[in-house]
Order: sequence, then C-alpha cells, then structure tokens
Amino acid sequence: MTTTSPTLAERVLAGDPRAIARAITLVENEDPAGAELVRAIFARTGRAFLVGMTGPPGAGKSTLVDRLIAELRRQGRTVGVVAVDPTSPFTGGAVLGDRLRMQTHAADVGVFIRSMATRGHLGGLARATSDAALVLDAAGKDVVVIETVGVGQDEVDIVRTADISIVTLVPGMGDEVQALKAGIMEIADIFVVNKADREGADRLVSAIEANLSLQHYGDGEWRPPILKTTATSGSGVSELAAAIDAFRDHASGRAPAHASGARDTMAARRRIRGEYRLRELVARLFMYHLERRVLAAGELEVMVDRIAARELDPYTAATDLVNRSIQLPDDPMTR
Amino acid sequence: MTTTSPTLAERVLAGDPRAIARAITLVENEDPAGAELVRAIFARTGRAFLVGMTGPPGAGKSTLVDRLIAELRRQGRTVGVVAVDPTSPFTGGAVLGDRLRMQTHAADVGVFIRSMATRGHLGGLARATSDAALVLDAAGKDVVVIETVGVGQDEVDIVRTADISIVTLVPGMGDEVQALKAGIMEIADIFVVNKADREGADRLVSAIEANLSLQHYGDGEWRPPILKTTATSGSGVSELAAAIDAFRDHASGRAPAHASGARDTMAARRRIRGEYRLRELVARLFMYHLERRVLAAGELEVMVDRIAARELDPYTAATDLVNRSIQLPDDPMTR
Repeated sequence: MTTTSPTLAERVLAGDPRAIARAITLVENEDPAGAELVRAIFARTGRAFLVGMTGPPGAGKSTLVDRLIAELRRQGRTVGVVAVDPTSPFTGGAVLGDRLRMQTHAADVGVFIRSMATRGHLGGLARATSDAALVLDAAGKDVVVIETVGVGQDEVDIVRTADISIVTLVPGMGDEVQALKAGIMEIADIFVVNKADREGADRLVSAIEANLSLQHYGDGEWRPPILKTTATSGSGVSELAAAIDAFRDHASGRAPAHASGARDTMAARRRIRGEYRLRELVARLFMYHLERRVLAAGELEVMVDRIAARELDPYTAATDLVNRSIQLPDDPMTR
Repeated sequence: MTTTSPTLAERVLAGDPRAIARAITLVENEDPAGAELVRAIFARTGRAFLVGMTGPPGAGKSTLVDRLIAELRRQGRTVGVVAVDPTSPFTGGAVLGDRLRMQTHAADVGVFIRSMATRGHLGGLARATSDAALVLDAAGKDVVVIETVGVGQDEVDIVRTADISIVTLVPGMGDEVQALKAGIMEIADIFVVNKADREGADRLVSAIEANLSLQHYGDGEWRPPILKTTATSGSGVSELAAAIDAFRDHASGRAPAHASGARDTMAARRRIRGEYRLRELVARLFMYHLERRVLAAGELEVMVDRIAARELDPYTAATDLVNRSIQLPDDPMTR
C-alpha cells in the first residue's frame, strides 16, 4: 500500500471532484493504485442507484441524460455519469468527448460527468465502467448513470453493471421490428421512445407494446412501461425520473402492493454482478501471473507464431500454459 | 480422446452438412468434444476468407448477405455463414431464427448457414463464433461470412474474428454523424450504404466520405470504399463481391501496385486474432481448474455473499483465489 492512495481514497469519500477524476483515470488505466483505491473505498459503496441507459446511435441518449440530470438536481439529488464511448480497438482513445455537456453542468458540484473509451480487450469495458461507478458511489452521488451506445454485447455489460436498464429507441430508424428482435426486449426495465414528436412514434410504441403483450409477467412482477420523451424540449423527462423511482421501490421491495416474487430483485442483480466481476478479476490476475512469472520473454509470441502457422492448435497451447502456471515457480521440489 | 470425435472431424473435413451442424453445436455449447474437434481439424484450417459484416439493426444486413451468397455461388465459390444473434443474457436462446434464409439455400450443398445466440458470459461470443468459422473453414467453404447486429463491443469481436470488416449503414437512421462517431470509422474496410434508393443516401455517402477525408492513408494503404447497394433488388451486390476480392488481394500482398507498407495485413490480423484467442482460452481453462480442483462446493458463493455485504472487496478476494490456485493441489509439501 502506498501513502498516496489512502489520501486519494479519503478525498474521493469527501466528494472532491479532482480526486474523483484522478481515481477514475487510475481504474481506467488499470493502474495498480486503482485496485488499491477500490479496496480502500469498497466498504463505503452500495448506496448509489445505478441507472444503465442504452440504445442505438442517434437515439438522443446524451440529450436525454442531460435532461434527466437537470430533473434529478431539481429534486436535490446528486448525479454521476459514466458515458461509455465506443472507440476503435486499435487506438483506444476517447472519442465523443462530451465537452458541451460538461460545460452545461460545470458550475454544479452536485454533478460529475466522465467519458470513458471502450477498452479493446477482454472485459475491459465492464471492469472500468464498474470501477468508475464505484468511485462515484463512494463519492456520495445519489444516482450514477451509465450511458452507452449500441444494441449488441454492450447491453449485457450494462445489465451486469446497473440496477436498472433503460432502452431508448426513436421512430423512423428503419425496421422497428428488427430493433425489437435484437434481444433488447428482455433487458429493458423501462422503454423510452425519444423524439416522440416525430412521425411514427405511436407506431413504435404499439410495436413495443405488442411485443410486451407476448411476454408472461407473473403476479407482482415488473412490467416495463413505455414512456414518450422529447429530450430536446424536456417533455416526458419528469415522468422518466418518476418511473425510475417506481422501479427502484419495486426492485428493493419497498413498493406498497408487490408480491413476494418481486422482492430483492435489486439484491439478486447486484449479487450476479458481483460474481461476474470476481470471475473477471481472477482471470485477469492469473494472466498477469502467467506473463510475469511463468513465461520467458518472447515465449508467448513464439507460441502465437506456431498457431498462425497451424503447427500448434490453440486448445493444446492453452492447456500447456495453464498446466505450467499452476505449479508454483518456487516449488521446493523444483528449486 | 473419444472414438467419436475423430470420425466427426473426418466427416467435417469431407464437408458433410450434418457433421458441420453437429460440430458447431459442440463448440457453441462448450462441450469438451468441441475442443477435441478443433484440435483435430485445426491443421486443415486457414484457407477460407472470413468476411465480417456489422451495422445497426434494420440496416438490411441479412438480405444483403443473402444476395452476396447468391453472387458468390454464381462465381462457383462455396459459402458458410455464421449469423450471430444478440439475445438476452438471461435465456441465452437463439432469436432471429433465419428460417426463411435457410429455405432459400436449403437445396444448395455449397451453402451452410448457421444462427448462433450471443453467449451471456465473458468472451463466449468471440470464442463460439471463431470456432464455428474454423469448422466451416475446415469443411472447405471458400468464404465464411460472420454477420452480427449492433455497433458496440460486437465490432471489436468481429475485427478479431474476420479478415475483412464490412460496415453497413442506411439513410434516415436519425443522426448520421452520431453513427459515424460511434467508433465504426476505424474498423471498416468497406462501407456499404444499403437501401440506397432511399432519400438521404447521397447525404450519408458524403458524410462518410467527409470523415474518411480526415483520416491519413499512407502510400499503398487501403482506403475503405463506399458502396451503394439495394439488397432487396440486388443492385450493387456484384460490386460488393468485387470490392471484397480487391481487399483480399491487397491485404494478402497480391495487389499489382501495392506498397510494402500494406504487405501481410491479413497475416498480421490473423496473428492478433490468434493471440487474443489463446489468452481467452487460457483464462477459461484456469477458471475451470479453480472451480473444479481448488474451491470447495459453495465456497465461491460464500465469497460472493461477503462481497455483496461489503465485508470483502473484489480485488482482495480475487488475489486470494489466484494465490491459492497457483499451488498444485497435490503439492508434495502439503500432502
């Protein structure tokens, strides 16, 4: 443990924006000090409500999140935002750069917005997003919004990182049925039809409704509402904030008339998230051990070359690497 | 090694459709016989050209792939298709169910189409897709198309699985600039503007062109072409097939007037893909070792409970698990 990390942790816990920014950079870069920081703050997390927001590009999610921030602030709640920007797997640089958005809330210490780039390696996005949310949680933000673009594997990560999943769609994006088919029906806790002043909004609502009517919802089970918003004017945003609260009450068993089947949805989700995260961390630490303590310099490259030349198959290579790694390098019998 | 796997491998190598189907099911289900099969066929792979196709839902990719199959068949080439369908992380079931598409080519033994569900766990999609492509490659398919929906993390997987990445967009999907910002500029080897008969097609082409003009392309470097197609009528599909061949010639160093900088792009990509795949397999095998040979029954659950209760942080837990696992359970000193 270094002497700087506890100080940084204390400053994060006090809500210092510069400390929050520094802490998120550490976890984003996979700096060992980032792991140390998470260790130090972890016991003080779990209080924030994590809101995941996804949908296809062009659905207006950024503007909607901006309006939601304003609504939550009006209610006196503090807000953290992690905007996950898909970027190239090659450069790894941040892209969307929400400079305009940051300016809007720059003077408000109750709001912290951070853009993060998609990491081009296994599990990097989920890990960095989850740690950044922990930092904002520890810093005392009441609500942490995790915003991402896309309707593919990203959703799985969001489901595993957030307490609620909001799927935002817009009218006129080609074949609405396609969009609904693409696996998003089952992850949404709330549907938002944004740009609801556009032609086709009611048709899109009907298409979602038709799909929902095919699902079976048990007694007391949450049925995803479909909300219409126009983020540019702010129309429907207070209703969205109310729906998020209603879901939270329901999922945490505080809703007045809910059946026992719905109890502890939030706790169950958080537990699944915790297990996923633990497994992912274990895999990463093991690869670190393998590369630093088992393999000779350049050895992995030779193996990869032999696989490329079809002299060695990946399953045999992987089995060999694991078998060698699970022997301690300072095993007394081999010393 | 079982006695059935070699037989299955031989049947796959002979191109038997039922064996191909069975083999893909094995790798999709992570059956140990699937790993055995990949071992047996691996030396006979590497010949097929892998075409990755992505884009937002509703872009008409399925129809486009159908037309591309017909064009390639007209040229006498055999085709395999792995259609990756995003589905819920909870049910894991297949969704899009390309029954209509399969019927179109059902009588043609030169075509094999398989839908796969997105696996809800770490790296599952990339692994299953990659193995399915290996099976089709070993079965002698000249071209293997890997088709997926979404513009998020999926793309990264596609880049790592395919030899070429084709990004399909359509006019009128809201804010075109948003779509282009979403990290897809850098992964595309070919852009397709589908539904090109729609209003706004030329505007979308101009927007992509404007973005491309901001990139720097070195001497002899591939500059992604922008093709207009109308998949429903088949317009532009033969040009797409020609562009794929042009990229292949370029990337494999067979283009007549290419600079040395472009040489072996394909070999370099395949090497990156091989390394990624090896790392992912190692992580999976290690987790298997940890769960079957190190942890007591229910031990992981207790740990997850303690993390959920904030009594234990995930970094400390993961470090503990790895440290225990890298000691051999039958270490002579602890026996």
